[in-house]
Amino acid sequence: PAAGLAEAEIVTPKMRQTAEKLAATALQDTTAYDLVESLTTEIGPRLAGTEAEARARDWAVKKLKQLGFKNVRIEPFEVPLWQRGVEKAEITSPFPQPLYITTLGGSVATPPEGVEGDLVSFPSLAALQAVRAGSLRGKIVFVDQVMTRTQDGSGYGVAVQKRRETAFAAHKAGAVGALIRSVGTSSHRFAHTGQMKAITDTSVGPSVPSAALSAPDADQLARALSRDEPLRLRLTLTPQTQARAPSGNVIAEIPGRERPDEIVLIGAHLDSWDQGTGAVDDGAGVGIVTGAAKVIMDNLRRAPKRTIRVVYFGAEEVGLVGAKAYAEAHSRELENHIVGTESDFGADKIWRFDTRIAEAKLPVAKAIGDVLLPLGIGPGNNEASGGPDMKYVREAGVPVVTLLQNGWDYFDLHHTPNDTLDKIDPAKLAQNVAAYAAFVYLVAEMDEDFRE
Amino acid sequence: PAAGLAEAEIVTPKMRQTAEKLAATALQDTTAYDLVESLTTEIGPRLAGTEAEARARDWAVKKLKQLGFKNVRIEPFEVPLWQRGVEKAEITSPFPQPLYITTLGGSVATPPEGVEGDLVSFPSLAALQAVRAGSLRGKIVFVDQVMTRTQDGSGYGVAVQKRRETAFAAHKAGAVGALIRSVGTSSHRFAHTGQMKAITDTSVGPSVPSAALSAPDADQLARALSRDEPLRLRLTLTPQTQARAPSGNVIAEIPGRERPDEIVLIGAHLDSWDQGTGAVDDGAGVGIVTGAAKVIMDNLRRAPKRTIRVVYFGAEEVGLVGAKAYAEAHSRELENHIVGTESDFGADKIWRFDTRIAEAKLPVAKAIGDVLLPLGIGPGNNEASGGPDMKYVREAGVPVVTLLQNGWDYFDLHHTPNDTLDKIDPAKLAQNVAAYAAFVYLVAEMDEDFRE
Ligand SMILES: [Zn+2]
Ligand SMILES: [Zn+2]
Ligand SMILES: [Zn+2]
Ligand SMILES: [Zn+2]
Repeated sequence: PAAGLAEAEIVTPKMRQTAEKLAATALQDTTAYDLVESLTTEIGPRLAGTEAEARARDWAVKKLKQLGFKNVRIEPFEVPLWQRGVEKAEITSPFPQPLYITTLGGSVATPPEGVEGDLVSFPSLAALQAVRAGSLRGKIVFVDQVMTRTQDGSGYGVAVQKRRETAFAAHKAGAVGALIRSVGTSSHRFAHTGQMKAITDTSVGPSVPSAALSAPDADQLARALSRDEPLRLRLTLTPQTQARAPSGNVIAEIPGRERPDEIVLIGAHLDSWDQGTGAVDDGAGVGIVTGAAKVIMDNLRRAPKRTIRVVYFGAEEVGLVGAKAYAEAHSRELENHIVGTESDFGADKIWRFDTRIAEAKLPVAKAIGDVLLPLGIGPGNNEASGGPDMKYVREAGVPVVTLLQNGWDYFDLHHTPNDTLDKIDPAKLAQNVAAYAAFVYLVAEMDEDFRE
Repeated sequence: PAAGLAEAEIVTPKMRQTAEKLAATALQDTTAYDLVESLTTEIGPRLAGTEAEARARDWAVKKLKQLGFKNVRIEPFEVPLWQRGVEKAEITSPFPQPLYITTLGGSVATPPEGVEGDLVSFPSLAALQAVRAGSLRGKIVFVDQVMTRTQDGSGYGVAVQKRRETAFAAHKAGAVGALIRSVGTSSHRFAHTGQMKAITDTSVGPSVPSAALSAPDADQLARALSRDEPLRLRLTLTPQTQARAPSGNVIAEIPGRERPDEIVLIGAHLDSWDQGTGAVDDGAGVGIVTGAAKVIMDNLRRAPKRTIRVVYFGAEEVGLVGAKAYAEAHSRELENHIVGTESDFGADKIWRFDTRIAEAKLPVAKAIGDVLLPLGIGPGNNEASGGPDMKYVREAGVPVVTLLQNGWDYFDLHHTPNDTLDKIDPAKLAQNVAAYAAFVYLVAEMDEDFRE
């Protein structure tokens, strides 16, 4: 058991030296940036199920083959397709003016002429959920709950419940429409979109048309409501849905030289929301994991012992559809997944190394973590999620880690049109690639693993 | 002549003390913030000639009367009305994706289905103007000239030529549409709107439909063009115009106690662009000049010697239409205008005191400037514009000054939806009010003036 091993037995001095050399090489390598530049420029927005997402898969296959990866393939699946239409909100009385909104993913449509109603504001989702069924007949509800800026992204988990549940709670209350203060931390006027419940979730109840307001617009409504006159709004949303559309995961490998059946899974998601070009979410992740694998592939005399598998998940944004497809398609292989991790939290520097592994194997994480320290990455906790697309493999027992990016600014851009290439700092991106390269090499090469 | 006067004779110790007391009071006064809060919340966007601008005038009359000003009135005039419609741009080939644009004020419309053409990029307006007439038949031109961030706003003068001239130069070249990189300094995805040539300028030649691209979109086009394939765009703009619509200037006064015919003119503009709520441009100015006059009115035993006239200009954004109407309506009075100044550069702290007065009267400016120094305001040059709406009175010989705000961030917000109340820092706004209160009091009270 690892508990009995000295660190130098887990990560030998020679392995450490190799990892450090790979990291140093990665800091100078531009593969990651070149990929995200290409993806965001030549494909741009790539919503799950669209023709643009299909073009992104073709782009990925071509790039991964050009880079020299093996076993490059698409694993197709289907996904419902939801697409925004007109999205318009305005105060009609007493202070007529337009508001800036974005339709929430999965929202039902209003009639073409919209719905109009008096606005009722709630300080939290819980407050809306507490009202009597049917007591808000004809109203438009507004959940004005503020998201807290945090470095580790923990503000998101709380805020996202509001995005998921408001439209359903509003329907129960009898409302005709619902608005939420954006799940985001920016002061610009783009509202942050995002999926309500998973697009594949067939158990959801009825809901009302719903949209997010930018923070300045939410502030504006709060001020307008403070005038103590009824505030009347009109909301027009005409999204359309289609039951089935093609999606898929793209997979590439560096086959292991000694234990090819043992998989080190590194992922990112290829789809994006429809308004930005998906640079920090998640073009950066695509660049980081691919760039790291490329550095390993090109700078070692022989491939590492285990197989390194790069997965670009499809249809993440609309409810982890690619993640589920992967876990199902590879269910018999999951016991050979040594570790899984996804880069899906932007491109700022990695500052923390979290794990979710057997307690007894924490010394293995410690030995690896020590190699990451010079990159400015400190030890974290043993409660990592591994990233959104690791949900199903994690639930199936695959150990996961998170190389946690600094998320301080991430939710300024997340799911808005502002998620564009210029927001990525190439030097910070390279630090990510370096950390991934060192980590992935060590796990693929070491004799230890993370299970009991 | 002032040149012979000691500073203490221009601004007596007692006047200085009063000015300092007014400034200190202004730093605690919330009138300015309350006004901009009210204007941006209860009126919101107020484009020249619209019903919203008319509501803003009614709001202004009511507020100015409530505050205790005298001779509150509207001086009406007419203005052509231009309103944006659909605005859509997309790369159709080889990298299909939407772009974020804003129609430039005064742009002509495309057909409803838009225009499509290959994109031709120019590094500057001059480069476009240098092409042979008719040589860009069927193309869409793109002037990719970057605006420089400066503290004093000097980057704007250069950049704005591109906004004014591109559509006309593009027409001469035979193009079917024109795009410019936004006149702005932000990295968000809102393009900055603004008027091309003055809406009242009947001498303008033919032009093509034209829009501004956000900086990230301009970057995207530059990258896409670097792929060496023809880049095809579709541009759809459906603005509408109407020959005449009502506008007006709103005027209020503190009559002078000794020389009521001599006017100290302080202005701001009441209209705004249609996408933000006109907080920094120019709700802030409305608050600053009114707040300053209010502090003077409420905190002196007697009114100053000269009349303080507050003017809210209408239809500034579309080409200084209110400024011209004012200069015409008051032409016989202009020789009694002691000084004119407008606050129209946001709400960051004032850092410099510029003048355009007789050389011989620079000691008068120096004496006033010394009172402003403790507010962090240093001496500037003698080439002030006085603000956009001072153009015609300045040209008629009225001395002008500029209490110059720090414009470092101004063009991040200017003419975009992001120009909202949350961008105003009440403490910085109060510093503006303090500077205006001290300056206006001194000029209204002193025996000197700024002319030879
Ligand atoms: Zn993501
Ligand atoms: Zn996302
Ligand atoms: Zn202005
Ligand atoms: Zn302006």
